[in-house]
Amino acid sequence: MKVTALSGGVGGARLLRGLAGLDEVELSAVVNVGDDDIIYGLNVSPDIDTVIYTLAEREGSQGWGLADDTDEVMEALEKFPLDTWFRIGDVDLATNLFRTARLRSGWTLSQVTTAQAAVFGVQTSVLPASDDPIRTEVHLPDEGWLSFQTYFVDRMHQTPIDDVRFSGGWAASPAPGVIEAIRGADMVVIGPSNPPLSIWPILSIDGIADALGGAKRVVGVSPLFGGRPLKGPADQVLKGLGLPDGTAGILAAYDGLLDELVVDTADMADLAADATTDVELRALPTRISEPEAAVALAAQLVAL
Amino acid sequence: MKVTALSGGVGGARLLRGLAGLDEVELSAVVNVGDDDIIYGLNVSPDIDTVIYTLAEREGSQGWGLADDTDEVMEALEKFPLDTWFRIGDVDLATNLFRTARLRSGWTLSQVTTAQAAVFGVQTSVLPASDDPIRTEVHLPDEGWLSFQTYFVDRMHQTPIDDVRFSGGWAASPAPGVIEAIRGADMVVIGPSNPPLSIWPILSIDGIADALGGAKRVVGVSPLFGGRPLKGPADQVLKGLGLPDGTAGILAAYDGLLDELVVDTADMADLAADATTDVELRALPTRISEPEAAVALAAQLVAL
Repeated sequence: MKVTALSGGVGGARLLRGLAGLDEVELSAVVNVGDDDIIYGLNVSPDIDTVIYTLAEREGSQGWGLADDTDEVMEALEKFPLDTWFRIGDVDLATNLFRTARLRSGWTLSQVTTAQAAVFGVQTSVLPASDDPIRTEVHLPDEGWLSFQTYFVDRMHQTPIDDVRFSGGWAASPAPGVIEAIRGADMVVIGPSNPPLSIWPILSIDGIADALGGAKRVVGVSPLFGGRPLKGPADQVLKGLGLPDGTAGILAAYDGLLDELVVDTADMADLAADATTDVELRALPTRISEPEAAVALAAQLVAL
Repeated sequence: MKVTALSGGVGGARLLRGLAGLDEVELSAVVNVGDDDIIYGLNVSPDIDTVIYTLAEREGSQGWGLADDTDEVMEALEKFPLDTWFRIGDVDLATNLFRTARLRSGWTLSQVTTAQAAVFGVQTSVLPASDDPIRTEVHLPDEGWLSFQTYFVDRMHQTPIDDVRFSGGWAASPAPGVIEAIRGADMVVIGPSNPPLSIWPILSIDGIADALGGAKRVVGVSPLFGGRPLKGPADQVLKGLGLPDGTAGILAAYDGLLDELVVDTADMADLAADATTDVELRALPTRISEPEAAVALAAQLVAL
């Protein structure tokens, strides 16, 4: 069974790990690149790294980077007059040096990502949503537009936002294999990532929303538990953009795209309230920080 | 006494350490930037780093980088499909990340270098020869032009060369303070660096050779010992460029620039043979790998 999953960072990566644990699933991941940036001159792709590190079972507990990484470079860098709010562990830095060196030598981000997945022993086909630069930017009422990393890492996503845009998305093409992976899948899953910040940048790329429209079956997984995300600002972002609270907000964010939406059992009460939607709603246990729970959820999704 | 020294990497840096050890000397270093390159996307300035690390008494024994540095990043990077012949230790990498980040934020290389020297507790005024990019390239009879780092590090300078050029030098200006440091010095020293590869790139910058012509006194220090350098390809490069062997080659490389040339006591025999030159020749012990020897040589230079 061919499954293609759209993914941001932590939540989406955990669902990917669950899906990758099912023998019957041939899995492709289409990963957000709107969080990509240039930090200290290095091309960082935080969501691709989180997906690959999680699939390799080496992800850091803090929501980025690698488990048990050392910190020699950042400790030295702190002595210089430079903001070092973007932390990169030593082994994680090697990933970013490889990516930067190869992009500068003419490789595409897809080629870099395929090589990176191989180095980490990851079998899943990990596809950047695009090889072209797309930058998610958020608007703060008092400050104007900020880059995603400034908002998310430096400000720790504590500041309310009232708009979001995907700079460059209009000119970006889907990476090779992305459209085929969506059209050819028996099921497309939109992972439990932040809809406006992690999934909309993927959908902003010319042709991807259309391909989803032609997909056999599109199943969303809500990132909310009792109306709130486990971490990250999904509820605040939905609110700031004027979307409804809770499950209704997720349905609005994915308006016209979903055949089914899976919510956590804690949000089962929302199912009745959202009875007006065409989308089929299901409640399943969606807390998947533990790999076993992720595999269990993946098995239930595949069995739907 | 104001002393300004032109310097490449190891040999020049050691003489700088000696000069910096003299209380009566107010020292400025004008450092070669022709070895600068972009490696793994990072702006590397090997000679500036060697000068600052040596002045801080933290230089690596291998001729680059820092003593007792760790190697977490490079060990991880080796797992990727990428040539990793350019090694950068972890703490050295922080220097390069700082430089890259600040250059990208609009700082000049001079500003970066001043901040870097302060972080390493270096009092000497360390000036890049230019804030503009200059790239030393060497010509191989069979292969054409190679970047300096490819020739020097990847090929380990084992390949004969027959020409050298300084790409961008024609468009480069001296960094702020360089001309003043040369004109205002009581003595300008050209350190025991490779003349064509480390000093010519400095001299290729518009105005620097002229400033030397107007300097009070210019003293060269030969990098040769019995006609050969301690390390590096200085003798081979002089030969490949058609210059004479030994002291005569150094004199030819600095034709018209020097008031005096200091050679090692091992090359004292050359003094008679080169009696046709206008340059005043002196023999002194110039083996300065040990800091005490460097201070002793510096004291003799200053007393000349």
